[in-house]
Amino acid sequence: MSGLVIAGIRLSSRLFLGTGGLPRPSLLEPVLDAAEPALVTVSMRRTSSDAPGSVLDVLERRGIPVLPNTAGCLSAREAVLTAELAREALQTDWVKLEVVGDEASLLPDAVELIEAAGMLVSRGFTVLPYTTADPVLARRLADLGCAAVMPLGAPIGSGLGVLSPHDIEAVVAAVDVPVVLDAGIGTASDAVLAMELGCSAVLAASAVTRAEDPVAMARALRLAVHAGELSHGAGRIPRRAAARSASPLEGRVG
Amino acid sequence: MSGLVIAGIRLSSRLFLGTGGLPRPSLLEPVLDAAEPALVTVSMRRTSSDAPGSVLDVLERRGIPVLPNTAGCLSAREAVLTAELAREALQTDWVKLEVVGDEASLLPDAVELIEAAGMLVSRGFTVLPYTTADPVLARRLADLGCAAVMPLGAPIGSGLGVLSPHDIEAVVAAVDVPVVLDAGIGTASDAVLAMELGCSAVLAASAVTRAEDPVAMARALRLAVHAGELSHGAGRIPRRAAARSASPLEGRVG
Amino acid sequence: MSGLVIAGIRLSSRLFLGTGGLPRPSLLEPVLDAAEPALVTVSMRRTSSDAPGSVLDVLERRGIPVLPNTAGCLSAREAVLTAELAREALQTDWVKLEVVGDEASLLPDAVELIEAAGMLVSRGFTVLPYTTADPVLARRLADLGCAAVMPLGAPIGSGLGVLSPHDIEAVVAAVDVPVVLDAGIGTASDAVLAMELGCSAVLAASAVTRAEDPVAMARALRLAVHAGELSHGAGRIPRRAAARSASPLEGRVG
Amino acid sequence: MSGLVIAGIRLSSRLFLGTGGLPRPSLLEPVLDAAEPALVTVSMRRTSSDAPGSVLDVLERRGIPVLPNTAGCLSAREAVLTAELAREALQTDWVKLEVVGDEASLLPDAVELIEAAGMLVSRGFTVLPYTTADPVLARRLADLGCAAVMPLGAPIGSGLGVLSPHDIEAVVAAVDVPVVLDAGIGTASDAVLAMELGCSAVLAASAVTRAEDPVAMARALRLAVHAGELSHGAGRIPRRAAARSASPLEGRVG
Repeated sequence: MSGLVIAGIRLSSRLFLGTGGLPRPSLLEPVLDAAEPALVTVSMRRTSSDAPGSVLDVLERRGIPVLPNTAGCLSAREAVLTAELAREALQTDWVKLEVVGDEASLLPDAVELIEAAGMLVSRGFTVLPYTTADPVLARRLADLGCAAVMPLGAPIGSGLGVLSPHDIEAVVAAVDVPVVLDAGIGTASDAVLAMELGCSAVLAASAVTRAEDPVAMARALRLAVHAGELSHGAGRIPRRAAARSASPLEGRVG
Repeated sequence: MSGLVIAGIRLSSRLFLGTGGLPRPSLLEPVLDAAEPALVTVSMRRTSSDAPGSVLDVLERRGIPVLPNTAGCLSAREAVLTAELAREALQTDWVKLEVVGDEASLLPDAVELIEAAGMLVSRGFTVLPYTTADPVLARRLADLGCAAVMPLGAPIGSGLGVLSPHDIEAVVAAVDVPVVLDAGIGTASDAVLAMELGCSAVLAASAVTRAEDPVAMARALRLAVHAGELSHGAGRIPRRAAARSASPLEGRVG
Repeated sequence: MSGLVIAGIRLSSRLFLGTGGLPRPSLLEPVLDAAEPALVTVSMRRTSSDAPGSVLDVLERRGIPVLPNTAGCLSAREAVLTAELAREALQTDWVKLEVVGDEASLLPDAVELIEAAGMLVSRGFTVLPYTTADPVLARRLADLGCAAVMPLGAPIGSGLGVLSPHDIEAVVAAVDVPVVLDAGIGTASDAVLAMELGCSAVLAASAVTRAEDPVAMARALRLAVHAGELSHGAGRIPRRAAARSASPLEGRVG
Repeated sequence: MSGLVIAGIRLSSRLFLGTGGLPRPSLLEPVLDAAEPALVTVSMRRTSSDAPGSVLDVLERRGIPVLPNTAGCLSAREAVLTAELAREALQTDWVKLEVVGDEASLLPDAVELIEAAGMLVSRGFTVLPYTTADPVLARRLADLGCAAVMPLGAPIGSGLGVLSPHDIEAVVAAVDVPVVLDAGIGTASDAVLAMELGCSAVLAASAVTRAEDPVAMARALRLAVHAGELSHGAGRIPRRAAARSASPLEGRVG
């Protein structure tokens, strides 16, 4: 496996993780062991009940990169400010850019997102925007200089998987940067499908943190992402309406 | 992982393989290395262009159990005869029972299948019938003494995956014996889904043998079956129509 | 529209109705006005709280044919007996044959169904069997002399629509007799889809009787069945992954 | 049926039609008879091989409103100019606003669309924008003063129907103006589904003009839209995983 490279950095896997919703702090390390994530995204505005500082300590000790995100920001201005604070606090210019248009649906606001992405790129950030699965918008984001695009499969925390595989394939076809499936993943089959549609990586958060057994689900997703990367590259058989026997009728064994 | 037990025999994995359609004999061993199958099913009536004898030699040398199948049989009588020949030739009383009702669709014939299953059980065979995804029929087969049931996800060789997840879940709920998803698997996400629906194992044949890269697909399926077993047991999050943020809005990091 | 003919009888529409679950007897006539059903199926063993006798009176007065059914029968013997009672009581040799294998799922039992169908055909009945969406079983039923086959789209009363469109298309392709989609219909789009898959008619029961507004749903289904018949015959455009503009770019209007 | 009102105008039906791709001019009037459209959308930049002038004459003679569209426009500026030309040429201030971001996919460009919508509203147009099925973008368009929003079910001319029913429901929930499903309709079941998801009307173009029998498909779609309006209002039964018998087991008829 050649590995995923974003903005010149080679990542160690194709699974991104959000751990903010884990029910107990003691689950963090076993989940990281099981998931082997390329990075962990951390909210600058939303934090879990376990002290965020300790999460950062754990990640630093293990050498797992932190991807600060701007979850909860409702305007470009707020997102840019949050990214600046993150850069200062966490000493990274990477940012997962979220600008939501609605606090209930948590769906991205295309207009503010484009504006924020442009501003952050011009300020030297490595920007990974959370976006609708819209290939035209994704191409605009890539053209602005975003390092990857992160289309949603379904609303955050919904566990609905990939609502429109067609749209994710269209995003993959539209851009030259890596596509990371963000939001919607509920279980392992969703993650495999995302990879088979051509995504370069998958982000999971609630799927792990709210599973009954977060460690088992973390392990499942690690395997799933790897399985999907392999099957995507293996050249699957075409779908056929009719049956086709596995082997020609020729003779008898024995 | 506690492992799958059928008829008192503990199998080494949850992936069953059919290798009859491999384009080159030289692919057999690398595919077996990649798939680590619990067993390999071999047609008594249909054979691949590579000499079947050598396949059996390879399996024996590697200690991989052989599951003879009755593919191509159109009646109970023919299937029972084929199973008897297999038992004699291969020294195993296990048989994957196929009685198809139509040479084009290769779909099972419920009536002949029930008749053949009853006859084979009474003759001491360990019977794993290929069946429609019909819970009533599956329960009949289990009640007759079949050691597992093998419902189809989609027609043989179609690569359509699991056409009706609801039906597979109903079969799993209807029987006490292991359910092995047979036919329809096209790629890794199909295999994960089958496991998440509650199947105990998955059989793949064309998905591997006709993939552009059979070895990569074999490895993908091995990981997929393991991922699906884990995610099925991990207690996935419920599907929700609305969004739900990954963590509460509480404060700021840094 | 040339009209549907079953067993030599030209039916007045392509919508079959079950009215047994209507919440109030007074809804029966408005529902019949709205649905304009080809016939109404009446259970010989299960009856609604309104006196069944009065239902039969209404149907007779309106000239709507009655199709007695054997709902609730668990064996071929019981179904045949019920059909004989129906023939005597209702003066019709038509019967919708139901032999269920499980009182919870109400799914057909293939083995008992085949046996009952054969017995009823030989006794001169016009048999319309409720069956799994299994083309091999459907062909067996047709070959036995059944006048139509009635595959299920989804379990009775589930409102899940057509779980596997592929299977319904396969049943349509497998038999020469009319195919009537039975069970699963939840709303109008399900009925249109069934017709577009090639069914000759659709049966609705709970979809109407348990809707909040049974009369509006009855009217919707009447229109839906007609819409689906038309669109099936109209030669729909192929599905294409890519866009295609509606008209060539040539000039400007005005 | 109370009827659809957009911008204070009561429309005569809930089916919008595009006729630009009809294979023969002689089909126009039979298609209009069959479809009974609320209005016909006419491209200002793309025209069919039949002289557009004659289409306008037919529509005027029949009293069918014309909805000029800006298909083919790639920028807000171009779309506004085209709308101005349409207003002058056709004496209507209604415009179906299309600003596509890509000539291959014909998908809307969110940024240019918002800009054009704002300009057109401020110039006194009644604006119906063709948009992605994005509830945040749809609400922005409604807040700008658009009279309706027209989300796509699938790419123009694809016939893929509604790729993500969830997204269309979200758009319906997000705005107070009518939602008209635009693009993707391939056949009647797609149109019923769109209405059942809560759309107020449906636009069809290629589905009719490229069908083998455009007149039959036009009639099917007219019935489908009506069926879907009724079933949406009728309060469908809930989807249930398990079966439920149509009526209680109580006694016997006859």
